[in-house]
Amino acid sequence: MPLARLSVPAAVPTRKVRALADAVHDGLVATCDVPPKDRFQLITAFEADRMILDPTFPDLQRSAEASIVEVLFLEGRNVAQKAALFQHIATAAIEAGFRGDDIMIVLSENAPTDWSLGKGLSYGLNHEPGTKPERE
Amino acid sequence: MPLARLSVPAAVPTRKVRALADAVHDGLVATCDVPPKDRFQLITAFEADRMILDPTFPDLQRSAEASIVEVLFLEGRNVAQKAALFQHIATAAIEAGFRGDDIMIVLSENAPTDWSLGKGLSYGLNHEPGTKPERE
Amino acid sequence: MPLARLSVPAAVPTRKVRALADAVHDGLVATCDVPPKDRFQLITAFEADRMILDPTFPDLQRSAEASIVEVLFLEGRNVAQKAALFQHIATAAIEAGFRGDDIMIVLSENAPTDWSLGKGLSYGLNHEPGTKPERE
Repeated sequence: MPLARLSVPAAVPTRKVRALADAVHDGLVATCDVPPKDRFQLITAFEADRMILDPTFPDLQRSAEASIVEVLFLEGRNVAQKAALFQHIATAAIEAGFRGDDIMIVLSENAPTDWSLGKGLSYGLNHEPGTKPERE
Repeated sequence: MPLARLSVPAAVPTRKVRALADAVHDGLVATCDVPPKDRFQLITAFEADRMILDPTFPDLQRSAEASIVEVLFLEGRNVAQKAALFQHIATAAIEAGFRGDDIMIVLSENAPTDWSLGKGLSYGLNHEPGTKPERE
Repeated sequence: MPLARLSVPAAVPTRKVRALADAVHDGLVATCDVPPKDRFQLITAFEADRMILDPTFPDLQRSAEASIVEVLFLEGRNVAQKAALFQHIATAAIEAGFRGDDIMIVLSENAPTDWSLGKGLSYGLNHEPGTKPERE
């Protein structure tokens, strides 16, 4: 129910892109209490001239594989969890062959009532732990 | 002025994608007081390996046509309106041939002063009901 | 560290798309205290039937070059800064050959701790002015 959007250069091999996607999801599970099956990811490849990323800001050295990971998830994670998430994703991406400088991550938040996972049901009203499900 | 982003599998036929887009806009008009002409939608088709959606979380059966609808709109809609929006979109999508389990919807919010619909004018300062237009 | 996403019709020439991207970044630098090197932009071209934009809402005349600029940046900019940003982008886009009616801009916000620019480091904990860097 986090929704992750990965924007990667077209030149990055498919296997490596998949490893980054795995890194993102594993990080969410390990640091932010996301259920292992709660995985929703969209991946877009960009030609070089459609992805304008400063090569060094603020104190990094980005390569042609610099990628952007956006995650939209429920509000409530604290600063330590977010920092651990960043670290987890970067570490796993490095293991997959990325350079740490090439992984930019951006988080956005919303509320349980902003999600419907299917059937037109409000997650906040129907699935949220502690709420009484109103459907059978 | 809601901005809707539809992410659909490339395999979904164009006619059906358009019907989903219509469902989203009709839902916004019917449940969230969006003016009928206030329609702004971006549609992206994804190859199967670029759209990683868990097939069953939390208690659903997604097919190869599982799609994601993101809507960014003004803050202020209440929980009941959002729930009605979800239901409206899913119902209309089902009428268009989708399975209800295949329609995931995610909402995000911002403020009137976060929008410029054109000409560099701030919607919040220029168009918002109750504000005095400052241009002729 | 703003992340800008430009959605443009496929028919818009590359040179003009690049000019719009420049306009967006120049506007952020000029009005919102974004460092000149702090540039991160993703550009997506859409076929006409994948970009459904009302041609006149609310009181505009959009052409086949109507484009959408989304910017996700740090919370804290005030209404005047946002209004100046809209004006700056539209003015520069017009100089690049766009019609002012064709430039729609949408802002979203998050917090410094929602960003990692690289190496798995939290921007809010490591780079934010006034914080003590915790890495060497």
